Amino acid sequence: MPNISERGKIMPASPIRKLVPLANAAMARGIKVHRLNIGQPDIPTPEVALEALRNIDRKILEYSPSEGLLSLRTKLRDYYRRFNIDVDVDDIIITTGGSEAVLFAFMATLDPGDEIIVPEPAYANYMAFAISAGAKIVTVPSSIEEGFALPPVEEFEKLITDRTKGILICNPNNPTGYLYTQKEMNRLRDIVKKHDLFLYSDEVYREFCYTGAPYISAFHLDGISEQVVLIDSVSKRYSECGIRVGAIITKHKELKKNIMKFCQARLSPPLLGQIVAEASIDTPEEYMLMTYNEYVERRKFLIDGLNRIPGVYSPIPMGAFYTVASLPVEDAEDFCQWCLREFEYEGQTVFMAPASGFYTTPGRGRNEVRLAYVLKKEDLADALKVLAKALEAYNAKKV
Amino acid sequence: MPNISERGKIMPASPIRKLVPLANAAMARGIKVHRLNIGQPDIPTPEVALEALRNIDRKILEYSPSEGLLSLRTKLRDYYRRFNIDVDVDDIIITTGGSEAVLFAFMATLDPGDEIIVPEPAYANYMAFAISAGAKIVTVPSSIEEGFALPPVEEFEKLITDRTKGILICNPNNPTGYLYTQKEMNRLRDIVKKHDLFLYSDEVYREFCYTGAPYISAFHLDGISEQVVLIDSVSKRYSECGIRVGAIITKHKELKKNIMKFCQARLSPPLLGQIVAEASIDTPEEYMLMTYNEYVERRKFLIDGLNRIPGVYSPIPMGAFYTVASLPVEDAEDFCQWCLREFEYEGQTVFMAPASGFYTTPGRGRNEVRLAYVLKKEDLADALKVLAKALEAYNAKKV
Repeated sequence: MPNISERGKIMPASPIRKLVPLANAAMARGIKVHRLNIGQPDIPTPEVALEALRNIDRKILEYSPSEGLLSLRTKLRDYYRRFNIDVDVDDIIITTGGSEAVLFAFMATLDPGDEIIVPEPAYANYMAFAISAGAKIVTVPSSIEEGFALPPVEEFEKLITDRTKGILICNPNNPTGYLYTQKEMNRLRDIVKKHDLFLYSDEVYREFCYTGAPYISAFHLDGISEQVVLIDSVSKRYSECGIRVGAIITKHKELKKNIMKFCQARLSPPLLGQIVAEASIDTPEEYMLMTYNEYVERRKFLIDGLNRIPGVYSPIPMGAFYTVASLPVEDAEDFCQWCLREFEYEGQTVFMAPASGFYTTPGRGRNEVRLAYVLKKEDLADALKVLAKALEAYNAKKV
Repeated sequence: MPNISERGKIMPASPIRKLVPLANAAMARGIKVHRLNIGQPDIPTPEVALEALRNIDRKILEYSPSEGLLSLRTKLRDYYRRFNIDVDVDDIIITTGGSEAVLFAFMATLDPGDEIIVPEPAYANYMAFAISAGAKIVTVPSSIEEGFALPPVEEFEKLITDRTKGILICNPNNPTGYLYTQKEMNRLRDIVKKHDLFLYSDEVYREFCYTGAPYISAFHLDGISEQVVLIDSVSKRYSECGIRVGAIITKHKELKKNIMKFCQARLSPPLLGQIVAEASIDTPEEYMLMTYNEYVERRKFLIDGLNRIPGVYSPIPMGAFYTVASLPVEDAEDFCQWCLREFEYEGQTVFMAPASGFYTTPGRGRNEVRLAYVLKKEDLADALKVLAKALEAYNAKKV
């Protein structure tokens, strides 16, 4: 039998995925599993988006242009302007979700052996896309003790080699919920300027900033506009993760052309998703505000609740809808498995993402988990109760 | 400014794409452009598919499983059984169009430097996906004189090295419309068996076989079922190219797991496309028959018409909805450009794909074009008339 690729062998299977069969088995046993493991919001998709589908009047569901529908790109340009992101329609290329945006950004800028620097913990799939491109992700550790702030500039500079092509950030951050400050963003600007690097900036959670601190887009930074590769997606802000519509935004002319070659090879981003995304941009302000307020409350509720459990610590995330918390266990992956495999409290258990999957430095984040507050407050209350009981039982059994 | 990737630089820009601005400019001048250049059918999408959208009753457009909706995969299994393709639901992984199926098949089986052998002319984007994976496509020429039949086995064997991982075919073929015979398929089976290779088989046009000759799936071949990687897409058969739903089908257990890692990294194929694809499988037989008959007529009409133009020759394609024809010109790319840039007849011109883009051997196919018969007969009649006049004028101007 012919062999599979080495590339595929080194690609890490997501630590969440390993737990999915355990969660399914728990449900099959009749246990209610509180899913804090994945950023799939329970917020309804805006009615205006669903209406666009119900009223579809096309006779042929044909290819869209490879760069995406002009009408969607035009509306996105206006949307970005609301955030003082000044880009042209031509700078916006529609992709199949933020995922394809990351993949194409890497494919069009990185060759095998090239390196990018990423603060860890980081969204695990960046690694997968880097491996797909044959490139290497080098991580700068941030820590829960520092609230996952940007590591000092020197830590980045230590890692820069002649193969370094860029720095990747996610802001607001998945998995930590951290929001980079103006000072931190200026530091990043200075490094990418000095070393002539790309700044890949994944800003899909920009609508979710909770502390009044400003959201600083990479495009707000002076003097590096041609070095910025902005990654976007409509998935989270309109609770429509399944439509697979994202974007790459760049002002680097040669890069745009290069990305377009990859876009043309796959012909077209999803037409229906684009129709929904375009309609979603007209979502009424009250929906956006209601969603925002909901997350503000959930955040407060979850973080307060976590910090009240003995031995648990979570910094206060400033954005997105995740937090990384440390637990009073040695091996959070083992604990997460155990919760699904063996534990229940009043017929319930919790499904959390072991944070080790978001680190590449071995051993880091071993006692941490990522929690997504994508559930209703009542469910979060139950989940917190179950988590407290689970930690008690898990640690009692070990004594 | 940081540099783009070398990978991107070597990626060929599609020869069709270069012509798109010329076609747009022609239309802006008020000229009717007959688009024979791309496989975008003008057949309406089945009503049952559009109805599924109009009746959508989901509240949240959420991620689907990374491997695709179970209900869709189950229906696809039953669909394949109609063609005596005996696969399990677990063998079917849903992808974002046939494009992603090819990309993931390559990513999961090929490492940088690995080679696959492809008969040329071949679908141009295979090359782009191979470059994305760092792999090399090696071509075995087939020729218009032989009606694009499979080249002799010895021609394949000459090219096999220790880096050869597989052979890729498209059957029925894009761009030639060729349908491989049982004998030819058996030869391929023998080579892949002998050399322990993958047989990547792109069978998206299986519904379009016109001569009564049987469609032989790679899965019909004995003794190599774990070596077959079948590529599929619903785009063409239900005229829904924009929904981006395809599939990879494999019985190779390790490969399945490996492909799933790439699927998990991009989270989910398009949910809405999957809903439409699932509904499409229930398309009434009469729609399928009507579509089939329509293509049968168009094929006859186009091929007869082409062969009646002095100096033009097209073999009779047995499947798909393309043909590669040779023209009485030296450089078909120049001719195609000229048609869009300078020519018109009664306010019309033609947009064809220069076939050189489907060959990797320099110089091959220079006087050939690919034509897609995705237009109504009346439009084909006009296109043929315009083509004849264009050839006359083009060659007259050169004397």
